[in-house]
Amino acid sequence: MTRNPAPDDLAQRIRAGDRRALAKGITLVESGRADDRVAAIALLTALGTDRQALRIGLSGTPGVGKSTFIESFGLMLTGQGKRVAVLAVDPSSARSGGSILGDKTRMDYLARDPLAFIRPSPSQTQLGGVARRTREAVALCEAAGFDIVLIETVGVGQSETMVAQMADLFVLLLAPAGGDELQGVKRGIMEMADLILVNKADGDLKSQAMRTCADYAGALRLLRKRPQDPEDFPKAMTVSALEQHGLAAAWDDMQHLANWRRDTGIWDEVRLAQVSYWFTEDVRQGLVQLLESDPALQDAMTTAKAQVLSGKLAPSVAAAQVLAALKGLAP
Amino acid sequence: MTRNPAPDDLAQRIRAGDRRALAKGITLVESGRADDRVAAIALLTALGTDRQALRIGLSGTPGVGKSTFIESFGLMLTGQGKRVAVLAVDPSSARSGGSILGDKTRMDYLARDPLAFIRPSPSQTQLGGVARRTREAVALCEAAGFDIVLIETVGVGQSETMVAQMADLFVLLLAPAGGDELQGVKRGIMEMADLILVNKADGDLKSQAMRTCADYAGALRLLRKRPQDPEDFPKAMTVSALEQHGLAAAWDDMQHLANWRRDTGIWDEVRLAQVSYWFTEDVRQGLVQLLESDPALQDAMTTAKAQVLSGKLAPSVAAAQVLAALKGLAP
Repeated sequence: MTRNPAPDDLAQRIRAGDRRALAKGITLVESGRADDRVAAIALLTALGTDRQALRIGLSGTPGVGKSTFIESFGLMLTGQGKRVAVLAVDPSSARSGGSILGDKTRMDYLARDPLAFIRPSPSQTQLGGVARRTREAVALCEAAGFDIVLIETVGVGQSETMVAQMADLFVLLLAPAGGDELQGVKRGIMEMADLILVNKADGDLKSQAMRTCADYAGALRLLRKRPQDPEDFPKAMTVSALEQHGLAAAWDDMQHLANWRRDTGIWDEVRLAQVSYWFTEDVRQGLVQLLESDPALQDAMTTAKAQVLSGKLAPSVAAAQVLAALKGLAP
Repeated sequence: MTRNPAPDDLAQRIRAGDRRALAKGITLVESGRADDRVAAIALLTALGTDRQALRIGLSGTPGVGKSTFIESFGLMLTGQGKRVAVLAVDPSSARSGGSILGDKTRMDYLARDPLAFIRPSPSQTQLGGVARRTREAVALCEAAGFDIVLIETVGVGQSETMVAQMADLFVLLLAPAGGDELQGVKRGIMEMADLILVNKADGDLKSQAMRTCADYAGALRLLRKRPQDPEDFPKAMTVSALEQHGLAAAWDDMQHLANWRRDTGIWDEVRLAQVSYWFTEDVRQGLVQLLESDPALQDAMTTAKAQVLSGKLAPSVAAAQVLAALKGLAP
């Protein structure tokens, strides 16, 4: 980005619902350039934090029908007059070469819906930067007045943890498993799910989808109740994105869960814990960057880490040497 | 601790197998005093990193028979001439008032076994310090020549993640669940398990234990295969710590798993990843402590966090202000 518009002006246009301004704002928060970062902070400051969307994290491995689900689910919501933004978190896209939402045409109708906004994930980002970029993009969509922000991710583990830290609800989309076939659910992702949706409950796969759903419902019952769950949650249910059934029931459940959490105060608690977490994380990452930008300290860290990896120094000892160097003491 | 022995002398005695020296060394690494920390770093430096034990993480909620299991399992190992150290991680002990291993008499025979060393968890520690304290205590036990270090924890989540980052194997101990009764397994802990042992497979509970074991074996099959697992792992099996059966089979499985990981190079990979992780964590924690020890920056952080929590500032904006203050720029 060579020329940035004035942050106050851009903020005003984003809040007024200007989609091109929103896209421009997201490009700004995604940028790795130092001057863009200054402008991004000014933009976020000008946007404020008074508007809230329902943030839904959506995870599912390739092949479960995620694009079809987002298209059907999104169109159902826009059909009710809701404004829907879709963002993608895909730390692997730089490697695999293909972003989840890279091919917007897979969501052809939703992409052309004036009530929807779809943002493909950028092709090149470091994992550390993905969290901040996505979180700030969510904040921009909220400021732009969207009712629902869908944050989509690929089911590889680390990105789910990140998305769960910025979502109000977490939905896991699965495909029916055949017979003894293993389901590719990464351990730990089930931990985060508020709702498990077994997709493709249509045609020949319908009975398989119901068996898979029952299996997961059983697995969920084996896990401990969380304080953020009302009765019967987390739950597993079948949907068909293709035939568009089960989507209204899933949306009812999401709203029920969101309302219950709002009524009990858990919603606010979680949001406060999330902003507190990200504030501390940002400060910590900034500190580490400060350290890494100092060549002498960087040298100390590289030397110390090499000694840790060669087995010559215990991690505590090596860390103590680096910190001593930082304080200007002899290591 | 008012007087510290010379680190080199203490290190020599620990390496020679002097149990009182080992206990003194652990007290030293547990201490929060700045001068003790200097001595602890000197001790770790003198001890070196050339000896390796098999580190087994063991998790189980109160009531699953963990003390009985450790007693029976530990005595079986010492009976084979192995030296066994038992350490406890219990970040909740300060609150609950009761350490897991506080009552050594529950492991009366093992506590008096000359081949065993049992270290109760200290009564007061901050969570942040628990990881380093335990990891350094493990390093001391390895330097003291123990063959097996059991790292015991209580099944509350955060401490398991920590233990998994310092163990070679992770064992989850469960009790039989009756009928529809829910098992108190925290989501995410199953993610870490290499071996699930359903204890109390004796007397009236035997058939219940077998059903519970089958349930968990089924749940494990629903989760994705990890690269660190040979065929048939992770697995669930029944044991009776009371009647001492199943323990030899469990130990066979642990050895099989450990040998497989050694042969495939995964053992070394995991250990390198662990020390690299702890080195970076220690440096980061040290940086945050440096920040927190500067009153002006501390003020900036408190002010910024209050604005985050009151909804006035986005986390990125507040963090940017703190970091700008740190760099001596205007916030």
